[in-house]
Parts: sequence; C-alpha cells; structure tokens
Amino acid sequence: MKYIVLLLFVGFFANGQPATESLNLMPWPQKIEVKSGVFTLDKKFKVTITGMPNARIFAAITRFLSRLDGRTGLFLEQGLITKLNEAPTAQLQINCLREGKIGLYEDESYHLDIQQNNINLTATTDLGAMHGLETLLQLLQNNSTSFYFPAVTISDMPRFTWRGLMIDAARHFQPIAVIKRNLDAMAAVKMNVFHWHLVDDQGWRIEMKNHPKLTKLASDGLFYTQEEIKNIVKYAGDRGILVVPEIDIPGHATAILTAYPEIGSKAVQLNVNSGKKKQLFTQLQSYELERNSGIFTPTLDPSNPKTYQLLSEIFDAVCPLFSGMYFHIGGDENEGKDWDANPKIQDFKKQHNLANNHELQTYFTMQLLPMLKKHHKVVMGWEEIMTKNMSKEAIIHSWKGENEGLAKGSSLIAAAKNGYKTVLSNGYYIDLMQSVEDHYKNDPIPENTLLTPEEKARILGGEATMWSELVTATTIDSRIWPRTAAIAERLWSDQKITDLASLRQRLKTVSFRLEELGITHIRNKEVLLRNISNNQKTTALEDFSNICEPLKIYSRNTDGTEYKTYSPLTLFADACTPDAPDALEFDAAVTHYLNNKTPENETVVTNFLKKWIQTNTDLLALSQNAPLLQPLLPLSKSVSETAQVLLLKIEKKETISADKAQELILQCLSKDHADVELAVCNSLKKLF
Amino acid sequence: MKYIVLLLFVGFFANGQPATESLNLMPWPQKIEVKSGVFTLDKKFKVTITGMPNARIFAAITRFLSRLDGRTGLFLEQGLITKLNEAPTAQLQINCLREGKIGLYEDESYHLDIQQNNINLTATTDLGAMHGLETLLQLLQNNSTSFYFPAVTISDMPRFTWRGLMIDAARHFQPIAVIKRNLDAMAAVKMNVFHWHLVDDQGWRIEMKNHPKLTKLASDGLFYTQEEIKNIVKYAGDRGILVVPEIDIPGHATAILTAYPEIGSKAVQLNVNSGKKKQLFTQLQSYELERNSGIFTPTLDPSNPKTYQLLSEIFDAVCPLFSGMYFHIGGDENEGKDWDANPKIQDFKKQHNLANNHELQTYFTMQLLPMLKKHHKVVMGWEEIMTKNMSKEAIIHSWKGENEGLAKGSSLIAAAKNGYKTVLSNGYYIDLMQSVEDHYKNDPIPENTLLTPEEKARILGGEATMWSELVTATTIDSRIWPRTAAIAERLWSDQKITDLASLRQRLKTVSFRLEELGITHIRNKEVLLRNISNNQKTTALEDFSNICEPLKIYSRNTDGTEYKTYSPLTLFADACTPDAPDALEFDAAVTHYLNNKTPENETVVTNFLKKWIQTNTDLLALSQNAPLLQPLLPLSKSVSETAQVLLLKIEKKETISADKAQELILQCLSKDHADVELAVCNSLKKLF
Repeated sequence: MKYIVLLLFVGFFANGQPATESLNLMPWPQKIEVKSGVFTLDKKFKVTITGMPNARIFAAITRFLSRLDGRTGLFLEQGLITKLNEAPTAQLQINCLREGKIGLYEDESYHLDIQQNNINLTATTDLGAMHGLETLLQLLQNNSTSFYFPAVTISDMPRFTWRGLMIDAARHFQPIAVIKRNLDAMAAVKMNVFHWHLVDDQGWRIEMKNHPKLTKLASDGLFYTQEEIKNIVKYAGDRGILVVPEIDIPGHATAILTAYPEIGSKAVQLNVNSGKKKQLFTQLQSYELERNSGIFTPTLDPSNPKTYQLLSEIFDAVCPLFSGMYFHIGGDENEGKDWDANPKIQDFKKQHNLANNHELQTYFTMQLLPMLKKHHKVVMGWEEIMTKNMSKEAIIHSWKGENEGLAKGSSLIAAAKNGYKTVLSNGYYIDLMQSVEDHYKNDPIPENTLLTPEEKARILGGEATMWSELVTATTIDSRIWPRTAAIAERLWSDQKITDLASLRQRLKTVSFRLEELGITHIRNKEVLLRNISNNQKTTALEDFSNICEPLKIYSRNTDGTEYKTYSPLTLFADACTPDAPDALEFDAAVTHYLNNKTPENETVVTNFLKKWIQTNTDLLALSQNAPLLQPLLPLSKSVSETAQVLLLKIEKKETISADKAQELILQCLSKDHADVELAVCNSLKKLF
Repeated sequence: MKYIVLLLFVGFFANGQPATESLNLMPWPQKIEVKSGVFTLDKKFKVTITGMPNARIFAAITRFLSRLDGRTGLFLEQGLITKLNEAPTAQLQINCLREGKIGLYEDESYHLDIQQNNINLTATTDLGAMHGLETLLQLLQNNSTSFYFPAVTISDMPRFTWRGLMIDAARHFQPIAVIKRNLDAMAAVKMNVFHWHLVDDQGWRIEMKNHPKLTKLASDGLFYTQEEIKNIVKYAGDRGILVVPEIDIPGHATAILTAYPEIGSKAVQLNVNSGKKKQLFTQLQSYELERNSGIFTPTLDPSNPKTYQLLSEIFDAVCPLFSGMYFHIGGDENEGKDWDANPKIQDFKKQHNLANNHELQTYFTMQLLPMLKKHHKVVMGWEEIMTKNMSKEAIIHSWKGENEGLAKGSSLIAAAKNGYKTVLSNGYYIDLMQSVEDHYKNDPIPENTLLTPEEKARILGGEATMWSELVTATTIDSRIWPRTAAIAERLWSDQKITDLASLRQRLKTVSFRLEELGITHIRNKEVLLRNISNNQKTTALEDFSNICEPLKIYSRNTDGTEYKTYSPLTLFADACTPDAPDALEFDAAVTHYLNNKTPENETVVTNFLKKWIQTNTDLLALSQNAPLLQPLLPLSKSVSETAQVLLLKIEKKETISADKAQELILQCLSKDHADVELAVCNSLKKLF
C-alpha cells in the first residue's frame, strides 16, 4: 500500500499541476491498487443494489446518480432507485450484507473494484456502501470528451470510529439549510458524527413545548422546532451520521437563566433594615441574553432542587428527539465565581463534603447521569467534567491545549489512562483561522505515544469544532471547508498519510466538488467582496484577499467585546480565509528565486510584486465609491511600498538600508487594519 | 411628480454610469421630492416605533438594522428591537396607526420624510411601514468614506393590490430555504402575494396526515411538512405577504392518481369472453408519477362520488394550514381525452345535461366551492374555469396569450367584463426566458382599455409565474431575479413609469442588493461555470455566457421530453440568463459606431470583436479538460469567425461577399448548440 501511495504522490509532484490520472481521494483509502484501463461512462450507465441494506441506500444511490449526471451532463437514463435490484444487469453492482447501525463501532468498510466493463462495490453494511459511493465519485476522471473511472481496487475502512464536526448554533443561529448542506459535505469526506451545540450564553435553540419561556425569552426567535430536529436526525442518519446534541451546563447558562433566573447561582447582598448586622439573602436575579463573546459567570445553582427538576424535564423533552446514545452536557469553563460568592452554595458544599468547586461540579454532573440513563443516553462532556469521582461511563471531550497553557491534548491521554473513552478537539478548532497544516498534523495518537492497546482503544477519534462567535450562515462554510476535509482524512486514513503537498493538491478538487452539495465557501466570497466594493469590479479585492488572512486565535475579537452577536460579519476579514491561496505560491516562488536566480525565477517573483502594486492602485480607485474598503488601504499600501522597494532591489540592484527594510517589514506585519494579517510577510522578508 | 421623475432620469443618462446621487428605487414611488442635504449615518443611528402596529414590525426593524449594518459596517449600537418606543430619541421615528391585515385591499401606503437630522416614516399600517423601510434601504447612498440617505419626501402606495409571484414546487421540488429567500426578495420589491403551486403531474408536495399515500407514492420523498407550510405562511405574513396555495385539479392529476388510481378517468376496454360483443368496463388503472414535461391526460373522474369525498378530506386537511382567504384549484389544460373515452363519464354528462367537457368541468369546480367555503376560502383558478355557469365569486387567473394563439391577456378583459375578479399572468411567464423588456411593457390595463371603472377595479393585479420544468434550487433564483423586480414595479408604480433605460440602470443595483437576502442569482452562475470548466479558470466561459441566452418559449425542452425531472440542469444554458449583459452594451456600441465612425467608437466595437476571438481560443484550450464545454464550441467558433471577418472589414476595409455574410449570420443564428442562442446576432448583422 505504501508503495502505491508513494507512486501516486510522485505523480502529483512530477506534473506540477493535477495530472489527468491523479486521484483526488480524500480521505485517502487504506489500500488502493491502480490497474490499467478505465471504465467509461455513458448515458446507459446503471446501478443496482442487492443484499439486505437499510432502505436509506436507495435515496443515497439516487443522489449519487444526480451528482454524477450533474458533473457529466450525460442525461443518464436511470434517474432514481427505489428498491432492491431494479436493474439486474447494471454495470455498477452494489451488495451489502446487512443494515448499518448509526453510532460508534459499526462496520464502515467497503471494497470497490473497478474494471473496464463493470464495477463492484461490496460492503458489510450500507454505511460502508455509501462511503464507497463517495469514493467512486471522487474517482471520476475525464479527458476532453468523456468521463471515466480509472480501474482500481480499493479496500477501505476508518482508523477512528468518531470522526466529528461540531457546529455551534447558539452564538450565531445556523438555519436548517446550513446544517443540511454541512451534513452532506461531512458524508462526502466520510465523517460520521455531527455534534450540535444547541445552547449557550447567547441563546437557547430548541423548541420546548412545556417550557416555552426558553425560546420566548432566550432565543430572539431563532430556534429549531422539534420536528426540524427530528428531521435533521433522520437526514443525518440517511447519510450515516450520528447526531450528538449538546446542552452546555452548569456554566454557559445565561440563556437558561434568562428564562429561569430562579435556578441561578448569583447571590445578592441585601441590607436588612433592622439595626442588626448585614445579612445575605439569595434573591431572584434577572439575567439578560448575552450579546458578547467570552466566558461569563451565569451558572446554574447546584444546590437548588429546582435546578434538577427543570433539567430532568428538559432532558425528558429533548432526549427523545435524538436517536443516538450520546448526550453532551458541556461542563466547560465554569469558573465558579457565583458559587464562591453565594453563601448558600458554600454551605451546600460543606454539607456534602465537597472540597472545592470541581467536586461540586462533579456532584452536579453525577445528578444528570440517571436523568440521561433513563433515556438510554451516555453522558459526554468537555474535559472539565473529568474529576476523580466522575463515572467512567462518561466520554471526555478533550479541548484544551497550548492556548490554555496546557500540553497539546494532555487531557486526551489522561482520560484514556484513567479509563475514559475520549475524543480530541484540541488542534481541531477550525474557528481559530489556523492553517490546514496545523490541523492535518494533529494526530489523536501521535507516534510513540505511551499507551497500552486498551488505552489507545479508548481514544475514539476527533472532532472539528466550529464555534460561531464570528460566523453567520453566509460565512460559516468558508470556515469549515475545505480544512475540515483534511481533519476527516486525519481521522480516517492511515497514520502515515501525512504528505502536505499531496493534501494541498487533492484539496483543490475536493474543495471544488463540495460546491455541488450546496457548500458556499467559494461562491459567498464573491458576495462579500461585491458588498465591500459596492458592486464595483472585485478583481483587485479578490487579489488582495488572496494574500490576507483573518486574525487568528481569538485576536480578532479582543476580550469578546468588539463583535456583538448582531455586529456586521460582512467585512473584508470575513471574505478572507486561512491558507491564503497566493501566499504559498509566492513563498515557493521566492524560495526558487533565492536558490537559483534565473531570469525566469525572477520574473515569477517580480510579477507578484507588480501585481500587488497595481492592486493597491486599483483598490484606491475603488475606495472612492466604497467606504467599506477604507480599512484595508493602509495594509495594501504597505504591501505596495514594500513591493516597490523590492523591485528596485531585484531589477535595478539598488540596496536597501536595514532601517528601511525593518520599517517596511514592520508595516507589513501590522495587525491593526481590517482585522486581517498579511500572509506574505515572511516571504517578503526573505527578499530583503 | 412627473417633473421630478424626469429630472432624475436625466440624471441617469447624463452620467453614463450611476451617479452618486441617482436613486435606485424599485418600484418607483408614486410621489417623490428630492430636497437638498443628506442624513449621514453613524453607529449611533437608532430606530423607534410608536403607534399600534402588529408585533411583526419589531423583527422587521431588526432585519432592517442588520441589513443596514451589513452594508455599511458601522457596528450600529442598536442591534435589535423588541417592543414599542425602545429609543424615544431615535433619529428614525416610525409611527403606524394600526395592525395591517394580510390580504387584498389593505392600506399599504407610507410616507417617508428624510431630513438632515431625522427621518420620519408614517403609515396607516405596519405593512406600509415595512414598505417604507425597504424604500429607505434602497435610498442608501455613499461617498468615499460615509453612508447617507438623501433628503427626500416620498408618498407612496401601490397601483394594484395583487402583486404576486408563483413558484412551482411540483415539477422540481424547491426546498424551504428557496421559498424563504424569495419571500424576502419579494418583500424587498413590495410584492404581496406568494402563490405556491404545490401539486402537479410530477409530484404532491404537502404532508397529509390522514392520506400518507399521497407523499409516500407521489412525491419521491420531497414534500413540505404541515409545520413547514404553517411556518412559511407565518414567515410570509411577517413580511406582509399573503400565501395562496394551489392544488391543480381535475387535470394535472397524475400525482394524485398515482396514489388514488380509483378516482381516475381512464377507461379500459376489456374483452369479455362470453361470445357476446365487446363491452366496456371501467377498471382500476395504475398511474405513474410523471417524469416528463407537458400536458398529460390523467384527470380526476368528475362522475365518481369518491373523487369529491377525497377532495373534501384533502381540503379539510390543507385549508387550515393557510390563513389567507384564497385557494387556487388550478383547472387548466384539461383536454378531456380520458373523459371522452370513458362511457361512464359520458353517461354522467347526459344525465346531468352537461353539453360538453367545459360544462362538465364547471360542474366539477362548482362541487369544490362549498368544500372551500366551509373553510372560508374563495376559489381561484386558471382562466379555463371561466365558463358561463361559473360562480362570480371565483377569481380568474389569466394566463393564455400569443403562445396559445390568443390575443394578449384577452381572458383578463373578458373576466373583468363578465363580473369576475381577475389576475394577469400572461406576459409574466418568467420561465420562458424572455427579456425584462417584454415583461415590463406588459401592463394589466393598457392605456385606452375600454373598461368601466367597476370593471377596471376587478383587475386585481398580476403575478409572475415561475414554472419549474427546467430549474433546480441552484438555478431558480436566476430565472426569477432580477426580472421579477421589473414586474413588481409594473404592478406597484404609476402606469406612466415606463422608461426602459432607467429601469435597466436601477435594476443593476436592485439586483446586486438582493444578494444580501440570500438570493443566489449572481453567485450560483459561477458555481455552474466552475462545474462546466471542470474547475479551470472561468473567465472565458463567463465572457461567452454574457452574450448567450437560454432558448426561449418552450424551445429548450421540445415536446417536454428532452429533460426529465431528473435530467442535469448544470449546463451552460442553465448558467446563461435572459438579457445577456454584454449584448445590450454591444448593440449600443454598434449603433454609435454606425452613426458616427470615429476611431473611439470603432475601438469600442472592435474590442468586443477581439475579445470574442480570444474567448473562442480560450474555450478551445479549456475544453481539452472539460467535456461539458464541448457543446458550446461550435457557437463560439461562429462568433469568432464572424468577428474575424468583421474586423477585416472594419480595420482593413476589406469587403465581404453577401454570401459569406449570409453564411456567417446563419451560423450565428443557430439554435442547435448547448440549448442557447446568441444574443448579439442582430447587432453583428448590422455591421455587415
């Protein structure tokens, strides 16, 4: 297998651009053998399915046919499939032994054999067969006039059983259409867990028939109906995806407390007018839905029986909406400030021999377990729930790392050693606007990890987390994709599949093909740029956006207060993405040039520099009729000035003083403009 | 009023491009006075509302703030509005006397007065106020650094009370997201009726709790749940829009009959083996969901009591989902073939003294009236329902015209004269891919129409109809918009507002602004072109698409059989639109040049010609890796050859033989390639 993979990677490199024969598979399969010959498609191409699959496979094949027809324009005669073996002589024969069960540890393997005249796809379950259909679509190749599949044999199965994507629908509500298209995209890269973050300080997003106050007072009217939720669970299941809901408690509770202040922890000091000394009373507080981002104090009162009464009722209403066996109760970032300040809660701790707030939170969480068990749910929580008395049944969601002053994924290893099943999200925080490289290199079980096989088996996999402080329905796809496809590969493919150049090459096609599923990451960039340009020509903005990236790791929204939930996310930073497409290319050009100063290599570099000088001129012209364009002009000017100086150096052999160079580089490094940073600073620096 | 309008139109022309001060209002208001000065926006801008509006206005103002902030990036301090008079000192003061009623004949007027320091918006109802907010958004102007509203006074109200858009969700199902974004776009151009065509030969799209067979057997799983429908009715109402559902009967009934064949009209001849002469028996037929387009024979049996029983039950289930008072029962294109061939139905006609199939259909329709009246619904139907015995309560929907061999809108006039209320759709068939000009010039009551005031008052307005034989969720917006905005103006504005150049100029901005509501007409074009180009650079395809238009008036899908419901709609014709943007510009350039052969005028023309030669070269290169691109090459080659010959004529003064010219023009006129036609043929012809 390794040999073949290497062979193909050589294929990518030798050609410089995608060769017709290169395979844009992602995640890369466990075993692939390329043979000679191709299977050529024509309108008579048909599919049939035999065995005992779940009926969802019929619609899956219908979608497969529709996507194939959309790409090829063949006007396939077979438009849809509704039952077993509809076309016994079909060229594509699919066989599944049995129904797949949506959840962990299911057999998702498949075997795909493409020959010149027929294709066989076999799988134990229909879930495996659906993965095989996605692989087949990724194998589609073409010459100038026809489409074909290369003859290959693929045997494939996932490395990890939990390959998840979390979407935060609380901080910015995400309409059903966003969820659906992302489920389709997940299925396209063989992900199988959708973690739906439904409740946080900024909103409660679940229709509650017996507790209407939650949406009435704490959702701004933006929530999912129970029917919509059930439909999403079915929609996900039809694509082999488990839905894990999250209600984040006891912290992150502003929304709940906006509706039910009586179960909050905040104590109020009241002066009692009796001449006696001041006394503390816990009095009803009012809370208001949070409009900022960050960590807030509103926390449920773990000493109040009403808290558990309400939570029990909530779980009774919410659990039946989800058919899967996992329920995420959050549990993160409770700083316990209101607990510390509330004497009633302090008394409660003493009464129950709870040494500190961690133990108090464990007490709280342990009360939830039977409520969830009643509905056959296993509890999952962010790593803070892992304390010494926490049930080993709980799944630990590892999220902290360097940004929190801890070793990367340390809680993951600790959880596995402590006997907990665990899932990694540290390193997969796609909202932080980091490079695809950062995520791709982040292996849940790095080589040489000192764990026993039993401990390793407790590491279920990983999950990309899309927190929504700074995204709307218009921009969210461009934050999730295409980087999440690389995470999907990390979680599915062999640990040794790590070639970054190959990943980047394949990602171009994978990213493009996500468009057919409705993913808007490419198309909506132009929408934003048209708005910024005030409907003028967007070429210069597009060029400039290709060397800019949004500020990273929480630095765009300092202290969580610059952007409120209703602030505009239609700005230049929203149009830019990590992995600025021209930056890598420019860096390669600079490296080539510095290694070998041929006129050709020089021209590639100077053409970039000249383009950016022109871009600045064009942006200035556009800005005459586009106020939204003003904030990025200083940065564009810095690039232009630097490019001019570097051109003089390169073409006229003029020298640049160290001071001047330093000044220009500092200008380019500025993060003070338009919430973006230049992705070409280091490359420019090399040219001085 | 006329004076001011003319003044502004002069403004458009004088500048050649949109002047900063030009107003991109659509529909054009009844009365507008432009004053000196502007209201400049800053982050402290606030809105307040007083009076007794419906609570929906709070969310409407919140959406207004969000759109304003998205366009300006001001980070407005006021993010949302939840109650009356939240900000008493706000600069924008809105006052409504009372709640608006969703439906016809409501007061939708508003008065908007913008001064340097404050803005007053007053309206009788909140519906009028919402129209005023849309006008205010359209008034947004900017210089290089700030945004402002020009000081104007506007008094406005609609000319017609029915300003509708129909979406056919039967032939190609349209997801909820498509409906929602189009409702938002309708509200942006002050349309107030959404006609939802929910049932046709190709599918039944309504969840039926007591008749699940309808969706199980006749929807391919694509239908709206009852909750979704109710939510759409509310969503529409929140935007001032009435929803009129349509269940098309007794023809167009294949879907119903697929589920309930026992109420079909088809008779089957059975040979009875008794030596007696052949006898006719009506026997249970099976029907299959239609996959083609066209007019089909499956028709409900008007002689069968079960038909009325089922319809009554259907109306009992469907009527309560819609709060409006109108119910469209279709009634069109019943050719009565199965009625004629069914002796039982012929007997029924005789028994009931029904002279012909028209009378039989009237009999049928009259049975529906009490079923609908029970739910307080007034019946509406396509013009075929207008026969001599039809109740005068029914609303007649006029659709036939020149394509059907009749005088334009003749049934509209007939209906008004016959005492029926009536709505015009002939001339507003936006699926036919005709120019915006065709629709814009189509006045429901042309000047000099000989009708009494009472008769005129029966003409309620008009409705754009988006039939969905050839559209998917990806392409439908580009067929509806921006042309429907011109229809909206025709139905709202004064009859004298007919300047086409002004319309086209304003439409550029109106069309662009629809993007903020999620309308995909611009962004999805690139998606289609990327698919066609196989993810290569799309510039050449874009350039070529800008002179091509999809085949018009049913000629793309000859006999309705080339495209089945599952055929690919990802092709070049799907990326092209009516009013090909470069065609008009080129025609103007040709006219200028022919009137005045200056070098400047010549250059404009020859630059186009050179561009198209280059486009053809580029398309050829792209086609090496893009099979979907092959079908358009012959047409591109024709343009290139013609352009080359014309360049020789223009620049080198070479003569062209009449034969050669004729040959080239014929090539350009070809409609045999890629389902498109060239929009520059006539202009090219002028140059020979």
